[in-house]
Amino acid sequence: MLTISVLTIEPALFESFLSSHVIRRAEELRVLKVNLIDIRDYAGGSFRHIDDSPYGGGNGMILRVAPVVAALEEAEKRVDVEAVRIALTPRGEKYTQDMAWRLSEERHLILVCGHYEGMDERIYSYVDREISVGDYILTGGELPAQVMMDSIARLLSGVLKEGSAREESFEDGLMEYPQYTKPQEFQGKRVPDVLLSGNHEEIRAWRERQRIDMGKTEANSNHKSG
Amino acid sequence: MLTISVLTIEPALFESFLSSHVIRRAEELRVLKVNLIDIRDYAGGSFRHIDDSPYGGGNGMILRVAPVVAALEEAEKRVDVEAVRIALTPRGEKYTQDMAWRLSEERHLILVCGHYEGMDERIYSYVDREISVGDYILTGGELPAQVMMDSIARLLSGVLKEGSAREESFEDGLMEYPQYTKPQEFQGKRVPDVLLSGNHEEIRAWRERQRIDMGKTEANSNHKSG
Repeated sequence: MLTISVLTIEPALFESFLSSHVIRRAEELRVLKVNLIDIRDYAGGSFRHIDDSPYGGGNGMILRVAPVVAALEEAEKRVDVEAVRIALTPRGEKYTQDMAWRLSEERHLILVCGHYEGMDERIYSYVDREISVGDYILTGGELPAQVMMDSIARLLSGVLKEGSAREESFEDGLMEYPQYTKPQEFQGKRVPDVLLSGNHEEIRAWRERQRIDMGKTEANSNHKSG
Repeated sequence: MLTISVLTIEPALFESFLSSHVIRRAEELRVLKVNLIDIRDYAGGSFRHIDDSPYGGGNGMILRVAPVVAALEEAEKRVDVEAVRIALTPRGEKYTQDMAWRLSEERHLILVCGHYEGMDERIYSYVDREISVGDYILTGGELPAQVMMDSIARLLSGVLKEGSAREESFEDGLMEYPQYTKPQEFQGKRVPDVLLSGNHEEIRAWRERQRIDMGKTEANSNHKSG
């Protein structure tokens, strides 16, 4: 059973996602529990606001350290197992499918969704890891957190049909083979004859070759291996 | 004015996102229009289903080519400017901030959200580009489409305060400098003295050095340049 605690200033942005098929199925199977924590709920006491202007001047508002740390403590108090605290930030290490597999074996992940406009630098000293889902700038960590949750939830036991997850792209550095469904011909574009042959050995061999070819194309076009 | 047409079999997954601040602001300013198109609406006629089992056998259901092509044609009919047709797929070229800038100058983007379980290979022959937001497997193209839309919407004229977007990470290959806000000390962690000095020249120089240092760390940890 994996618990994912999400610390966000925009909990409403998770509504549609949390009712997606994969998340609901994982929760029904009791392999996943999601704790959505609104950082604003921890901005009380002597701190009235979640953000404030930056020291030294500049544009934008900076997420304060105090409410985030209070929310982190609350997340750990609610779940009585050791947590991996993760901040979503474009400067973090690049998220990969391999990382998804390893994180799916943890008991408690805490995802801190910053505002990319700025987080107080001291927040990073309270997390174990900084993770980036890609080299682009988003409004906040909410979409990256959903990316991580979706990719991890589908790896949890029973969520997908047996075997599906392991067969997919990136699992072994090769891409998936091309897939086709009805009709056999569409606007002059035909399904490869081998797939209609009924010869399982030939189909298997063809798919294996295609996976290797696609993997090579991918590797070349990105100037790096998978 | 940029129109983004989204072709999806899960339109409900866009509800929260489409009411996010950045998207609403871009729409209010009339620099962005979002067309959400449910592929299921184009699965009628002689084709009753959006997906079917794969030729040659195997797990999972494959998204059919016919409804996707019909939805693509509808998207182009609704918007009378040339469109860039993009499929979201883990095998695509890697999405970057630079790509976000270039796409933000287009007039019409059509984002085709596949099911990562499988799309009929022929669908790819109807798009101009295949884009991946990262090396991980998601349930569908819905989160990647939202990632693209968020990153592009914030670059459109007037959506962010003047200057904010260009100052952020990746724009020049360097990371953003560390930010701090009140209090000056939190659990023994202090804001760097220079930021409290009021000396604008020293603050500027310190930030510049920090950006370069963070950029280097990032580059090294990923074994590639930003």
